[in-house]
Parts: sequence; structure tokens; C-alpha cells
Amino acid sequence: MKVVILRLGHRYARDKRLSSHVALTARAFGASEIVFDAVDSGVKQSVERLNELWGNGFRVSFTDSWRKFVEGFEGDVVHLTMYGLPLSKVVGKIGKSRRDKLVIVGSQKVPSEVYHLADFNVSVGCQPHSEVAALAVFLDRLFDGKELLKNFKGRKVIVPQAVGKKVVDIN
Amino acid sequence: MKVVILRLGHRYARDKRLSSHVALTARAFGASEIVFDAVDSGVKQSVERLNELWGNGFRVSFTDSWRKFVEGFEGDVVHLTMYGLPLSKVVGKIGKSRRDKLVIVGSQKVPSEVYHLADFNVSVGCQPHSEVAALAVFLDRLFDGKELLKNFKGRKVIVPQAVGKKVVDIN
Repeated sequence: MKVVILRLGHRYARDKRLSSHVALTARAFGASEIVFDAVDSGVKQSVERLNELWGNGFRVSFTDSWRKFVEGFEGDVVHLTMYGLPLSKVVGKIGKSRRDKLVIVGSQKVPSEVYHLADFNVSVGCQPHSEVAALAVFLDRLFDGKELLKNFKGRKVIVPQAVGKKVVDIN
Repeated sequence: MKVVILRLGHRYARDKRLSSHVALTARAFGASEIVFDAVDSGVKQSVERLNELWGNGFRVSFTDSWRKFVEGFEGDVVHLTMYGLPLSKVVGKIGKSRRDKLVIVGSQKVPSEVYHLADFNVSVGCQPHSEVAALAVFLDRLFDGKELLKNFKGRKVIVPQAVGKKVVDIN
């Protein structure tokens, strides 16, 4: 099961850091690609630099028509929104089908069409918070925590420590 | 068990939106207060406006000495860092003691002292990602998902929908 993230409403400059956090969260929590609806080569470059050091072939790409991209996606479309059905109620069903997933995360207001295009509108709590938090918790529940144990096969590997930092360079 | 978040290294302007995401995530995932090491009344005001509509007495405050604040905290000090011990290995132990928790999240580089002041250095995965994601997943695991079902007793309440939005105003 491949998981692709679609980040809607990325505004260059204003959203640079938040969109980077969305992309890095997608990567660290087991997604294989993020697609933005606006070109931002800065975000792409920073993720790719990180890939190079820390491993995993996570991809960043862009689409000039998010509608076509969603309609053409072969798999389940999940839209994370505070107005949707509770995560705990639907995540089992979503995970059960091994079809690929497209997970849509917006920034501010999302076009109402998205609610209709999605197979599942899912709320990670019914309170306003953060698309980064929603994405992380959704993926953590979808993959049942296993995504955090994945080997990224990078050039740098962290050895967990009770105190301090230990990083090993793999040659 | 009360959970307080300490956000280190907040830089005014540059971190405004990210720090807001950290604060809103803390609130939505069951923490009762966030403390910043730099005054930013904009972040405080935006969280308080949201409290007013959506409920819950979540507090935003500031400290001019994070060291003293950590040292004076009565409870367990948890520092979220990609270099720490894996979440799945330590979260059971952390949750078992019903003492209050202080959860420290940094932005960029965190002073090495923090690793020593913490009772637990905990990694939410060993990959670089986002303090927002790390905080959300840590709290979700600590509270075992129950935090998302909490009643915030706000003036606005969302009624979960398969498609669309339904918000009820409580008078």
C-alpha cells in the first residue's frame, strides 16, 4: 500500500516552513510522495537534500490541476478535515483495503468540491489545530506505529540514547 | 495528570505560524498549558480567541528563565528529540506514573543542558521531521487516543459528517 499526500493551498513564502513540515512529516511517517498544487522549488530542494543524507526515496512533485490529479488517482482518497468522521471510527476500514491512499491536507480554506471527491472525510479530533499534527496522527494510526520503526537506509543513522546524541555515518 | 508544554527557541516573526501550530496542537491533544521562552502576544491572543469560541481553558504563558521553569516543575520532564529513546519503548513507563508532565519541544537547536534536565529524552521516530508532528503523536500515544474524544464545552461544536460541514452554535 503506497501513500501519497496532496497538499492543497500552498502559498509561496507564507507557507514555506509549514509546507516543509508537512513534507517531512509525510516522509518520516511512511508516505512515499507529496504533491503540491503550486511549484515551490525551495521546499523540493530542502526535502531532497534531507533524503540524500537520511535515506528513503521520498518524492516531492507538483501538479497544475489538483482536480485531475485526484480524479486520476487509483486508490482511496482520504481528506483530513475537522468536520469529517472521527479517525477512530474509520481508520480501520481505510487500512483494511490495501489499495493505495491519497491523503489530502489543506492549509486554510479547502474548496467544497474536495469533500465530495474524497472517499473518506476524516477528522483527527473536532478542534482546530494543525495539518501537520493531523497528518502525523493519521499516518501513525494507519500504519499502527510501525512506520516509526522503518529503516530508511540513509548515510546517517541515529542510535537512540537515554541522554545525548549519537549519529553514525554509514559509508 | 496535567500536561504542560514548554516551547523552546521561539523566534518572533519567523516562528509565529509554527508556534501557533504547536500551541493549537497542544490544546487539541489534551495539554492544559503552553509556556514560551519568548513573549509573543500575537500567538497568545490567537489561541485565546480560539479558546473563547471552541472552549477549554487552555493557557498560554511566558517565562524569562526556561531553566528555572524546568527545574521548578513538579512532575516528569519529557524532552522530544529525534536522538532519544523510541516512543514505543518508553511511553508506557511515562504514562504509568500519574505525575504531571512537562513536555519540552524545541525549534532548531536545543541547548545540550535540556538532555540532562529531562527525565526522559524521547524520539518520535529517528528521522528529522516536525515538532508539531512529534508533539501530536506523543500526546496521542500518552493519552491512548482518548484526548480526541474529549468534550471541550465550547460555544461552537462540530457534528461529524461523512461529507460537508456541520457546526452547531451553543448559546
